[in-house]
Amino acid sequence: TIYVVTPTYARLVQKAELVRLSQTLSLVPRLHWLLVEDAEGPTPLVSGLLAASGLLFTHLAVLTPKAQRLREGEPGWVRPRGVEQRNKALEWLRGGGGAIGGEKDPPPPGTRGVVYFADDDNTYSRELFEEVSTGVGMGKEAKWGQFHQLPWLPVLLVAAVKGSWEPGRESSLLPLCLPKSRNPCGTKRVRDPRALASCSSHSAANTVGRGHGECSMVLVWHTRTEKPKMKQEEQLQRQGRGSDPAIEV
Amino acid sequence: TIYVVTPTYARLVQKAELVRLSQTLSLVPRLHWLLVEDAEGPTPLVSGLLAASGLLFTHLAVLTPKAQRLREGEPGWVRPRGVEQRNKALEWLRGGGGAIGGEKDPPPPGTRGVVYFADDDNTYSRELFEEVSTGVGMGKEAKWGQFHQLPWLPVLLVAAVKGSWEPGRESSLLPLCLPKSRNPCGTKRVRDPRALASCSSHSAANTVGRGHGECSMVLVWHTRTEKPKMKQEEQLQRQGRGSDPAIEV
Ligand SMILES: O=c1ccn([C@@H]2O[C@H](COP(=O)(O)OP(=O)(O)O)[C@@H](O)[C@H]2O)c(=O)[nH]1
Ligand SMILES: O=c1ccn([C@@H]2O[C@H](COP(=O)(O)OP(=O)(O)O)[C@@H](O)[C@H]2O)c(=O)[nH]1
Ligand SMILES: [Mn+2]
Ligand SMILES: [Mn+2]
Repeated sequence: TIYVVTPTYARLVQKAELVRLSQTLSLVPRLHWLLVEDAEGPTPLVSGLLAASGLLFTHLAVLTPKAQRLREGEPGWVRPRGVEQRNKALEWLRGGGGAIGGEKDPPPPGTRGVVYFADDDNTYSRELFEEVSTGVGMGKEAKWGQFHQLPWLPVLLVAAVKGSWEPGRESSLLPLCLPKSRNPCGTKRVRDPRALASCSSHSAANTVGRGHGECSMVLVWHTRTEKPKMKQEEQLQRQGRGSDPAIEV
Repeated sequence: TIYVVTPTYARLVQKAELVRLSQTLSLVPRLHWLLVEDAEGPTPLVSGLLAASGLLFTHLAVLTPKAQRLREGEPGWVRPRGVEQRNKALEWLRGGGGAIGGEKDPPPPGTRGVVYFADDDNTYSRELFEEVSTGVGMGKEAKWGQFHQLPWLPVLLVAAVKGSWEPGRESSLLPLCLPKSRNPCGTKRVRDPRALASCSSHSAANTVGRGHGECSMVLVWHTRTEKPKMKQEEQLQRQGRGSDPAIEV
């Protein structure tokens, strides 16, 4: 099983992003989507989308504490995003439950798998998941704590065994690839490593086997979607001619 | 057949956009992708992507004349984008040939279908194409010229018969839905009609049948992807530590 962990939060483009991502994930066999809302509880938009997606999923939610939230005008990198949500998913993986928004066919405890952290706005090639799946069941050991501390890591990949992470077994997590510039595995750099592309070795097995990834192909892009301009709409709303609020966007 | 017409041009996020879109299109049965590059000829990036996509396609190219190109700093709406490319695709549909980049299984002349104009950066729900396909073969007549003149219309939908558009038959084109605010069919407005969402009636058949679309569901989002910031990369390049140019992004 590939466990794909995705933090998500309410904004104008949220549904567009999740539609796009869910359609990509629907191309991947043996995938379980852990969608974690940055919200007090599950929202109808996300619940509806998951139900319609045809995917196997677990719907979680946890609100990022106010003190950790990005303030208006603050540059994105000053605060971690999606961290509480990723940890919530790891808690579930460790057998902690908490599928407050419901789930569809969660794998039984003990199911071996790979955990892949996929932000909701990035672009993923379907080939990435073929590569990811080759990481399943590899035996190399690593300290979870190392990675746990990093504030945000959209492309962290670890092998995992669901529901069997008692404290003593945390080391069963295996980092397969950390393809950012601060990548401890090491990969060739590609154009604009921060904003555009994650370098992914063509074969993750290869990467892990050698400890150092030779990047040969880009399979993930750190795309960001523009915030829509709402000035015109706000003006129409003031005139009582705003868009139909009954239509979900 | 659904003929999806997509203009595309070289930029940092081009491959990401096309990967995302091609994966969406791969979920749709009986689809033929007319991908038209805004370039002098086919590029290796696009050719490679089409070959790997598994889709049925026709690869066209035509360069937008310099006088019509957007200038640095000019707001997007002052010039049409993708118009030459859409017209190129229509030429091919009329039987004009010109698949300079190659093609895979083009439908034989006379194949009935629907033409859907899909920009490379928008977000499409797979359900949209189910709706689109219901438009095939409807008998209502309309003047092609009406729509041809509009500078850009990402969500114009017409019924067509491939290779049989002699001048006298241009009226076989049927506008099914023009879901922008200037929509001549008329639809309910939704939040931010320009930047975010195209309102698509739940059933196009319904829309066309009544002449006025009652929008009940959004199935297309006019997303735009942020331009990546390249300052850091340019600095590294000056130091001779730039990204590996051999790796396609
Ligand atoms: O307040 C927030 C901001 C972001 N995210 C999620 O955290 C991840 C990373 O956020 P973003 O894409 O904005 O950060 P980037 O890495 O692109 O700067 C995404 O899946 C977001 O949906 C979140 O849950 N709450
Ligand atoms: O110089 C250009 C600019 C845009 N496009 C294409 O034209 C369509 C519309 O462009 P864009 O998305 O930038 O316009 P928008 O409607 O979002 O303002 C897209 O498929 C682009 O790939 C093009 O072929 N050449
Ligand atoms: Mn992001
Ligand atoms: Mn666009």
